[in-house]
Amino acid sequence: MRIVIIGGVTAGPKVAARARRLLPDADITIIERGGLISYAGCGLPYVVSGQIRDINQLFITSYGAKRDEQYFANEKAVRVLSRTEATAIDRNKREVALTSLESGETYTIPYDKLVLATGAGPFVPPLPGLELKGVHRLNNPEDARELADQLTAGQEAVIIGAGVAGMAAAAALIKRKLAVSVVEAQEQILPAMLDRDLAALLAYRLEEVGLEMHTGRQVLGLEGDAEGKVTRVTTDQGSLAAELVIIAVGARPNVELARRAGLTIGVTGAVAVNAYLETSDPDIYAVGDCVENRHLVSGQPVYLPLAGTAGKQGRVAGDNLAGRRTTFKGVLGTSVMKIMDWNVACTGLGEDQARSLGYETVCAVNAAHDRAHYFPGHDNIILKLVVDKSSGRLLGAQGVGQGDVVKRIDTAATALFFGGTVDDLASLDLDNAPPYNTPIDPLQETANIVRNKLDGVAATMTAGQLHDLLATGEDFVLLDVRTPEQFKYRYVGDPRVIQLALGELRARLAEIPRDKPVVTICPLGTRAYEAMRILTGAGFRDVRFVEGGLQGWPYDLD
Amino acid sequence: MRIVIIGGVTAGPKVAARARRLLPDADITIIERGGLISYAGCGLPYVVSGQIRDINQLFITSYGAKRDEQYFANEKAVRVLSRTEATAIDRNKREVALTSLESGETYTIPYDKLVLATGAGPFVPPLPGLELKGVHRLNNPEDARELADQLTAGQEAVIIGAGVAGMAAAAALIKRKLAVSVVEAQEQILPAMLDRDLAALLAYRLEEVGLEMHTGRQVLGLEGDAEGKVTRVTTDQGSLAAELVIIAVGARPNVELARRAGLTIGVTGAVAVNAYLETSDPDIYAVGDCVENRHLVSGQPVYLPLAGTAGKQGRVAGDNLAGRRTTFKGVLGTSVMKIMDWNVACTGLGEDQARSLGYETVCAVNAAHDRAHYFPGHDNIILKLVVDKSSGRLLGAQGVGQGDVVKRIDTAATALFFGGTVDDLASLDLDNAPPYNTPIDPLQETANIVRNKLDGVAATMTAGQLHDLLATGEDFVLLDVRTPEQFKYRYVGDPRVIQLALGELRARLAEIPRDKPVVTICPLGTRAYEAMRILTGAGFRDVRFVEGGLQGWPYDLD
Repeated sequence: MRIVIIGGVTAGPKVAARARRLLPDADITIIERGGLISYAGCGLPYVVSGQIRDINQLFITSYGAKRDEQYFANEKAVRVLSRTEATAIDRNKREVALTSLESGETYTIPYDKLVLATGAGPFVPPLPGLELKGVHRLNNPEDARELADQLTAGQEAVIIGAGVAGMAAAAALIKRKLAVSVVEAQEQILPAMLDRDLAALLAYRLEEVGLEMHTGRQVLGLEGDAEGKVTRVTTDQGSLAAELVIIAVGARPNVELARRAGLTIGVTGAVAVNAYLETSDPDIYAVGDCVENRHLVSGQPVYLPLAGTAGKQGRVAGDNLAGRRTTFKGVLGTSVMKIMDWNVACTGLGEDQARSLGYETVCAVNAAHDRAHYFPGHDNIILKLVVDKSSGRLLGAQGVGQGDVVKRIDTAATALFFGGTVDDLASLDLDNAPPYNTPIDPLQETANIVRNKLDGVAATMTAGQLHDLLATGEDFVLLDVRTPEQFKYRYVGDPRVIQLALGELRARLAEIPRDKPVVTICPLGTRAYEAMRILTGAGFRDVRFVEGGLQGWPYDLD
Repeated sequence: MRIVIIGGVTAGPKVAARARRLLPDADITIIERGGLISYAGCGLPYVVSGQIRDINQLFITSYGAKRDEQYFANEKAVRVLSRTEATAIDRNKREVALTSLESGETYTIPYDKLVLATGAGPFVPPLPGLELKGVHRLNNPEDARELADQLTAGQEAVIIGAGVAGMAAAAALIKRKLAVSVVEAQEQILPAMLDRDLAALLAYRLEEVGLEMHTGRQVLGLEGDAEGKVTRVTTDQGSLAAELVIIAVGARPNVELARRAGLTIGVTGAVAVNAYLETSDPDIYAVGDCVENRHLVSGQPVYLPLAGTAGKQGRVAGDNLAGRRTTFKGVLGTSVMKIMDWNVACTGLGEDQARSLGYETVCAVNAAHDRAHYFPGHDNIILKLVVDKSSGRLLGAQGVGQGDVVKRIDTAATALFFGGTVDDLASLDLDNAPPYNTPIDPLQETANIVRNKLDGVAATMTAGQLHDLLATGEDFVLLDVRTPEQFKYRYVGDPRVIQLALGELRARLAEIPRDKPVVTICPLGTRAYEAMRILTGAGFRDVRFVEGGLQGWPYDLD
């Protein structure tokens, strides 16, 4: 059997390796347009940041073998044609037309089964000034090497795009001590990962430590000096000085080849495949960043190019090539990243996304310690759960924090895969020891908040809602139940605030006006919830606590 | 309603807090025999190790309030009677007989609903010499304080018992620079957490860094000097010098009160409860370390006293006291601990345990990096999955390593809760970025090994099986597919070993005898598996690779 795989970066080599293990006698060829194959693209920002000192690390196996043509020939008996472009697929003849980018030579290669692993390319907006010196992208090892070599501490850098790629680039440049601004057309950072509330919180915290953020701002172009070096980024709200610019606006699936071959392109613009990863032509598979996937929660087609998906799909396609019928189950869009000291992670649907799909949602935001508060090295995390109101089914989870957010998102991703409810989440038997966790895992605590809301035991307000309420002249009490010592350090400066420590609340209930709505607040939400129950138990009618507390408060305090 | 809760350490206070939030007018009393309430017992070893400097940390909330009688009165409106023993329950009169341990006064207290949270006590074997100075336990804050004060760097310490408590104590003493030996009657350490293979590996690695281990050795007694200070621990295989001894043999549920009240005791010796945590008397609940639970995998009753269970049960009992019918789903025995630099974790059934319950199992041991191998700070982990052969259903998972084992065990615990299969595990959409994970999560990689074994694609041998085979005179080839540089550093010294790097294997197949069984080995198992597929593909009949590779090899190398 002749297997031809177009694309040699992530999913393609994985297909080849699995197919080879199952089909010792197959003839397997990988076609790759670039000069480099099978590299860890996820590592590029860390080359720029200097955390990975040698870019060759991205090309070598854990035992030091460089994954080049020779490696694939020797270890996998797979032929790699690099610097070779697949220009057309003749599905009747079962041939791929190739052009050597070295010699210009054109020829064809026959296949019995073809695999498209053409990946995604950067979307580059048609801005004036893209050709200026100092304007970079970060899409391949060459880009990373060039950028790492050319940047200098103290330079003013502007990143265009606050998605995952842009924020990763920003973090890398901050590490190299540049002065970094990020410009994003949408009203929030990381729109594909976080809801507005968590994004606002993260942006606020990152600005506190020196990353400048400009959301809701449209880039109009780049300006340069007489020597053709970039000097400014112009936006619809003024311009920013820039000695270095990185364009990180987003990725688009590479589908031209598939489209020209008449294969079905899905509604998201990526190649449509069935659960076996077959395209509309059963002799042609497609895997990785060029394909459209089914979302495991919504059941809808989505375009979520992620390396984990590429890896899993490689195995599935390899199995199917070998006649072992295997299905790819779908995706949750689980995504994680580190920005400076902050861990950011999400899985499943966000709140807005869930609502736009027609779900009636109930959510909870919860600030917590990631480990026993008495154990040295514990840190804060903020988690948010999105839950279907009628069934209690988990729809999505996201989190940010300097503590271990990722573990909780993996747990949520696993529960999502199985269609779990908040009751299920709360019932999981998870790890529990001071170096690793709090007695009740913060994810389960968050599930309990959702359950309390569903059961009418907890009534809450988000930080954003309280902020809006404070901006009105409305009469209410903001009851801060921290101790006086905690209060004086930083607080919401507003005449409607009453400070009364939780421990004294039962004895001093008379000091709280019964005719006004009461909103309770504390650092994490725990004491404010307790206070809410005390007041409700004492007959107060309209009491709510602020979810995520002051830890989740993305606004200035006095 | 009058609610009386017997036991004020972990589950009891949790029941009280939840019940109070739901029942503002209930009369709630906690009876506690000790002088200390609501403390984090899990933190005791870290007080001994010095990682928690101030033992009061275990008694205070994250906001600095000490959880004493006053705290419960003020914040929870819960009465705490400490230093008070519940001596009998009169179920007809619905009364508990109490004795003040301060004054000796006896009296009764009425209840409408009673909650038993009597916990567990240490099992102390009837050994001669227990009364000697220098013989300690580590069951309560007093023990921890005493031990922390009395130990001195350089002392010879012997821990009796290599279960979780014993190993935690050993780790704490090592941290304080004592010379520590652990004596265990069973043939392995951590018998409740790990199968023999992973236990052997962990023990080997811990011995390498200075912890002395004596398994399969029965302690006969303790000997002391003229001043009544302990000097030796005598065993059935000689004696060990000891200036300090810790008895950590195990825990027993405190069920005397329940037994005398005529409540049903389960087959495990703990209090039997239904899913609502009601005992055989529906007006009496039982929670935490004194109850028997249902195992979520086997469906069998088990006694697995763990703090996470106590916390969850507290909420469930609180709900039921308030008439909100809530069930406790069961346990997996998920358990984690840190021993020196090693993370140890398990969930569900072990291999032997599963077999003894009648499952036909297929297992895989997998050595892996916990993060991208090119990312600084990555570490090794060894995972093992236990799977039901006929259904592919996951039965249990365990892991040890200096890298992040715990995250993977939480994922496995979540999959176990939902009855997931290895196919499900491999299909999960988990986190994936260089600072957090490898492209395919090691747990999923391990699931893939199991799938390969089930599908006949992979044939394996465990480290123990190879070790036994090497001890025989049997003729076979042990093919080490590492590079010559890797090989010369440390290797299995045996004439049956052939070193041939994976990259050269396809070209040099003729050098491998076709008439002998071949066992392939490498550092982690990845290359050995690849080699196995190459040889099998080339027509070799009897080829197996060593699971977990040299990383999982708990024997000496040359």
